[in-house]
Amino acid sequence: MGAPHRLASSMATVRRVDDLRAATAAWRRAGLSIGLVPTMGALHGGHLALIRAARAACARVVATIFVNPAQFDNPDDLERYPRDRARDEAMLSGAGVDLLFAPAVDEMYPDGFATSVAVSGLSACLCGVSRPGHLAGVTTVVAKLLVQAQPDIAYFGEKDYQQLLVVRRMARDLDLPVRIDAVATERAADGLAHSSRNACLSADERARAPALYRILRETAARLSAGGAAAPVLERGRGALSDAGFAPIDYLELRDGETLAELTVARPPARLFAAAWLGTTRLIDNVRVAG
Amino acid sequence: MGAPHRLASSMATVRRVDDLRAATAAWRRAGLSIGLVPTMGALHGGHLALIRAARAACARVVATIFVNPAQFDNPDDLERYPRDRARDEAMLSGAGVDLLFAPAVDEMYPDGFATSVAVSGLSACLCGVSRPGHLAGVTTVVAKLLVQAQPDIAYFGEKDYQQLLVVRRMARDLDLPVRIDAVATERAADGLAHSSRNACLSADERARAPALYRILRETAARLSAGGAAAPVLERGRGALSDAGFAPIDYLELRDGETLAELTVARPPARLFAAAWLGTTRLIDNVRVAG
Repeated sequence: MGAPHRLASSMATVRRVDDLRAATAAWRRAGLSIGLVPTMGALHGGHLALIRAARAACARVVATIFVNPAQFDNPDDLERYPRDRARDEAMLSGAGVDLLFAPAVDEMYPDGFATSVAVSGLSACLCGVSRPGHLAGVTTVVAKLLVQAQPDIAYFGEKDYQQLLVVRRMARDLDLPVRIDAVATERAADGLAHSSRNACLSADERARAPALYRILRETAARLSAGGAAAPVLERGRGALSDAGFAPIDYLELRDGETLAELTVARPPARLFAAAWLGTTRLIDNVRVAG
Repeated sequence: MGAPHRLASSMATVRRVDDLRAATAAWRRAGLSIGLVPTMGALHGGHLALIRAARAACARVVATIFVNPAQFDNPDDLERYPRDRARDEAMLSGAGVDLLFAPAVDEMYPDGFATSVAVSGLSACLCGVSRPGHLAGVTTVVAKLLVQAQPDIAYFGEKDYQQLLVVRRMARDLDLPVRIDAVATERAADGLAHSSRNACLSADERARAPALYRILRETAARLSAGGAAAPVLERGRGALSDAGFAPIDYLELRDGETLAELTVARPPARLFAAAWLGTTRLIDNVRVAG
């Protein structure tokens, strides 16, 4: 016998902050722990892994779907971001989520909204450079969700590793009484990290996309030998180019806790990449063995 | 018979966030409402008015003393900011405060702290221009205090009117479950607004200082007649100069809710001033009758 299945119909959906608060406050009063899984919808196996982790540790699981305009540095990207609410709701319900919070934009950002929560240092590299304003958009909306839902644990995937570190720093710095748990990247059988943006790839691009992870692993293996990183990274960028990625936003070796740039691999080194296939930007990262 | 006096010895003092949380959580569990009065110490009649308002509305009152380095745009100003902990504690205790939270700097900003909470728009004028970074320093530390203590109501004085508006906006935008209450400016008999910085004035400067409020009132009376604001404000600046204020950081007519600049007074108009006497910067503001 496995864990008891919950009926798909047991998931409630709310669109108002007040209703989210009422539900989570009742659970807290009843002594039930709460896990939060923030998403922008367009769900995939990575999200399901977050939900599994939340269900394993928490008595109640809240998922959120909010395509957050504040974290899109590019209006076209916001416009074409994949959305399929009916499919998303069925997936969440089937995965055992207890409550879905799916607010409208004006519920999260009412008229006159003017506050930004930003993390310096950790945000000043990688996607913080190639997507200006993106990380502040993330930390602002996640701060709001954490204050609204007051979960015991919130779950973030390692695929968005910089986001994970930045959110963890923000929650700690603002004294939010929440633990931020990381969940390992989920991948397709060919190695491509699950991402909502994969749905934007053409068939040809999808066939090329697994090269990103393959080149990351190959480069990480070379870096773990301990020599100077620069020529190894240069070779990695060449391989990405040869595989059809253009432009390459970054391929960088950094400390996995501080994100300080490393010239030689040393624990906890991590290798980060962002690169484009056509009009789709893919990111991924891997640990570099010490 | 007035309200029952509390013994001075009934005020507890804590220096750790965890101890603050434990005390306020116990009160919440007991169904007791909590009022928060954030201060930087160097207490005066304005602070006592905040505490009276908190005692009138809340079952328990928490005061904080934290000279917040993040809101000082000038290291000399931080250095010379008046501090008298023993006198402050006696005043708070005598005023009926139940709990004093007086953290060290590294309790509020531990190693690696990197998060900033900022409000655009409202912060882009007045002290937001003449003291760069000051208001973000305020909103960051107040966000932390509100998350730490989780009060029902937090109290801010109208003397720092822009700060009041910015804090209220921040709390609303981040969905913090707190009401921000304004308390009218307390003044000495000669009209000077109570301020910790008044302690920095020489005897001669202290004698000149009431001119700030007098000129604000005279200028506001002229503005409320409804003509063009510019010449009236120019005359007010001249009067401040004649009274020995230099430099004058600003004397401006603005909307009391949005802080939009007004060329003609219309409700809710408010007149704001910041000007220096020697090495001390004084601020004040008054409503302009409609």
